[in-house]
Amino acid sequence: MHVVVPYRVSDPKTRLAPVCSPAERETLSRAMLADVLDAVAGAGHDPTVLATEPFDIPDGASASVEVDDRPLSVAVNAVLCDRVERDSPVAVVMGDLALATPAALSDLFTTDGAVVFAPGRGGGTNAFVARHPEFRTDYHGASYRDHRRICADVGVTPRTVDSYRLGTDVDAPADLVEVLLHASENGRTRRFLAERFSLATGDGRVTVERRE
Amino acid sequence: MHVVVPYRVSDPKTRLAPVCSPAERETLSRAMLADVLDAVAGAGHDPTVLATEPFDIPDGASASVEVDDRPLSVAVNAVLCDRVERDSPVAVVMGDLALATPAALSDLFTTDGAVVFAPGRGGGTNAFVARHPEFRTDYHGASYRDHRRICADVGVTPRTVDSYRLGTDVDAPADLVEVLLHASENGRTRRFLAERFSLATGDGRVTVERRE
Repeated sequence: MHVVVPYRVSDPKTRLAPVCSPAERETLSRAMLADVLDAVAGAGHDPTVLATEPFDIPDGASASVEVDDRPLSVAVNAVLCDRVERDSPVAVVMGDLALATPAALSDLFTTDGAVVFAPGRGGGTNAFVARHPEFRTDYHGASYRDHRRICADVGVTPRTVDSYRLGTDVDAPADLVEVLLHASENGRTRRFLAERFSLATGDGRVTVERRE
Repeated sequence: MHVVVPYRVSDPKTRLAPVCSPAERETLSRAMLADVLDAVAGAGHDPTVLATEPFDIPDGASASVEVDDRPLSVAVNAVLCDRVERDSPVAVVMGDLALATPAALSDLFTTDGAVVFAPGRGGGTNAFVARHPEFRTDYHGASYRDHRRICADVGVTPRTVDSYRLGTDVDAPADLVEVLLHASENGRTRRFLAERFSLATGDGRVTVERRE
């Protein structure tokens, strides 16, 4: 399967600005991408990073790079148009799924269906597989709802995989809790964060706090 | 399997106070409980509600009720002590898992292991199965981390099921988005909320807004 990992190269993860410096956000974002690429490889596929500009794949990870500086939906749709119309299924996996494992991705990749979604928290579409020539993406707003509508428009009944790991993208400070608790202890993302943050449970809600 | 659903009867779901009246919070909480009980029944088990005080099971749902007004961990541990020490496995499923389905619960119930967790967002332990006589709960703080430590203390390597549905408990206003997008359209919870709220995608993040 052709597995595409969209990736924004410059100024990534702006919603983490309250807790991470710009340099930390870039390092964290690269670590997450490398962990996702490893998970895709572990599931038996060679990933392609769909990057907003040229950049070097992080050390230790392996992927092809295609550059497309257009908005996310446009860039992904160009891939879908090119591949799926030639009867070649495409998987799109976001580069910030720091909890992704080969097993969770394999479950997505091997689930039958013209379109199969791994929904993300807050209405996102964290990953999907498209085997139908007319499915297209629209990542603006509640994309999961919109993607279901697009499926209905082209006569597809989508399927969904039920995965906490794929449903967890790392955008906001609260998401760092998920990495510290659930990401692989050997992964780059968890190691990077665990050196800098620990869990805090002061008022009953779990957050992260910077280590002394 | 003995399936226990802990339930706080009075003043439930206080974190929803910014968007729901006290009466709405009570109705919503009862709706979620009834949907969870239905899902447990759909998975082939007769649930027992572990309630903080006597109350009537919502119409249309079916369960036994046991009352224990002690703190959650103490009440659950009393059940574990009583049942698991007699070699009878126990499942504990929180009453606010509005996205739970029979399939997701069956996956939890049938996963082998001395202790099997369905972790929840923010370090919670949304559901688990215990087959080991010494496992006990501590729901304060980051309970998933603490429960793993308790497993280590008693020599158990816990297993985890990867479920977005079981990982989503409904506590805060943002969680209502999950219900509107992913809960069963025929469930009481989604119907109750869909009559009152719709999705709002104004600034890029998805929230709920009250219908006119």
